Amino acid sequence: MNTLGGALDKAAKATENTLERVLPQPHGLHSRIHEAMRYATFAGGKRLRPFLVIECAGLFGVEAARASRTAAAIEVLHTYSLVHDDLPAMDNDDLRRGRPTTHKAFDEATAILTGDGLLTIAFEILSHPETHPSAEVRVKLIARLAEAAGCNGMIGGQMIDMVAATRSFDAEEIKLLQRLKTGQLFEFSCEAGAILAEAGPEHQDRLRAFARDMGLVFQITDDLLDVTSTAEKTGKAVGKDQEHGKATLVSIYGIEGARAEAKKISDRAVASLEPYGERAAALRDLLPFLLTRES
Amino acid sequence: MNTLGGALDKAAKATENTLERVLPQPHGLHSRIHEAMRYATFAGGKRLRPFLVIECAGLFGVEAARASRTAAAIEVLHTYSLVHDDLPAMDNDDLRRGRPTTHKAFDEATAILTGDGLLTIAFEILSHPETHPSAEVRVKLIARLAEAAGCNGMIGGQMIDMVAATRSFDAEEIKLLQRLKTGQLFEFSCEAGAILAEAGPEHQDRLRAFARDMGLVFQITDDLLDVTSTAEKTGKAVGKDQEHGKATLVSIYGIEGARAEAKKISDRAVASLEPYGERAAALRDLLPFLLTRES
Repeated sequence: MNTLGGALDKAAKATENTLERVLPQPHGLHSRIHEAMRYATFAGGKRLRPFLVIECAGLFGVEAARASRTAAAIEVLHTYSLVHDDLPAMDNDDLRRGRPTTHKAFDEATAILTGDGLLTIAFEILSHPETHPSAEVRVKLIARLAEAAGCNGMIGGQMIDMVAATRSFDAEEIKLLQRLKTGQLFEFSCEAGAILAEAGPEHQDRLRAFARDMGLVFQITDDLLDVTSTAEKTGKAVGKDQEHGKATLVSIYGIEGARAEAKKISDRAVASLEPYGERAAALRDLLPFLLTRES
Repeated sequence: MNTLGGALDKAAKATENTLERVLPQPHGLHSRIHEAMRYATFAGGKRLRPFLVIECAGLFGVEAARASRTAAAIEVLHTYSLVHDDLPAMDNDDLRRGRPTTHKAFDEATAILTGDGLLTIAFEILSHPETHPSAEVRVKLIARLAEAAGCNGMIGGQMIDMVAATRSFDAEEIKLLQRLKTGQLFEFSCEAGAILAEAGPEHQDRLRAFARDMGLVFQITDDLLDVTSTAEKTGKAVGKDQEHGKATLVSIYGIEGARAEAKKISDRAVASLEPYGERAAALRDLLPFLLTRES
């Protein structure tokens, strides 16, 4: 687990250094929006998506310093989705990573604007020449991120999630929901590494397939935690899916069935990294880590 | 007024044709988000920002068909800001252009996602090669839009607007608020014409200065309407600024003083278009139209 632990730490540090530089320091009459954007972003998350960007870029020899702006863009985009998801009209969560959510620490209107500000700055970060010297590469990253995060990607998944609360879904519908809601951003994170390296489309496809499997494992283990863990361990409310009568792969396959499915997909994800040899060590180690995580 | 009326109609049609193509048709389990994005967008607005993009691009001979994707991107971005602004936690408006606001016609969670989806698709539209064959130009449009719409632009202005409700502002503070909240997007709309045409920075600067003045005239006349008009004429709630005790240039200068200020700025805006001769006819006509508008 040392390779993984070290790589996660390194990716988190590189990304946080970049975030520190690219997020505005609070200033002016509108300083509250800067404060809230920083509050939401610097909340001690795992920085899993930045790790994926940096490790996937590293498969092709791209340095972490070069990949960290793209990693930062994805992280603020992910953060915006959490801030809006937590709002009273959405999941109505008071707690996130053990701290008050943004609308609790500030207020609801500020949280809405904070999410909007983070989403917007994600594209501003990617558009800057420091992200990559080639405008073609930058615009490709932007096009793919907008697709992955948009109404046929992550936002589409959140919409399906709202429908899911109103009727029962079958396993295929749940997989579609999860592929959109959380999977698309994982796919983009991995693909971004190949785009930054200007590797061919076969690498983009391979890394997206890896990410798709990894995302499913992430989601199944997240659903398992919702059933089996405590708020103390996860730092957020648990048992919410059951409480809301929301179907998950766990409610369909049962706990043991879901664990077996996660293991099967995890093995396939690891196998897909085979061509990258030792450079993929940390990415490979991520799968058993997800399977056994407690938060 | 014929030049202006015809040009506004033409810009609205070109933009709406493009919006019809670029906004997804409702499909799949998440069709509700597509429906809500279309509901918010096709609401019969004046399409003032698309008009600015298309007319400013036209100053340099760029055809409306070429400029209409950029116009569409700005219009969906503007629409997102209205959808979020209308939310209960923000301005809490039930009515927009005489119809139920998005959260009233759908629900609050859908309206939040709709705004997010419109903001995201604005960048997706700009990133596409049909917007401009040069990736350098596309990424420049994206960088400038993100800046104009972000936490030091439009969103910053919305944050200041919230502060404005809690204490009294002087004229300079109100002008800053308005320059950020509504002015930045006008500035980008005009500048985008020069960027699309790959005209020099002197044209970008000149058109931004024009837009800054035009935006102030727009805002002062909007504030005047809030005081002097009826809901029937404007299709939205009026008297809200006074009711909320919010300072505007009208409350500081008085109705006649504000009218005089608007006239002075309008004259300056018209003068700045002088180098463009007859090609600027519709842009020039916009100013007297704003000064005398009733909605």
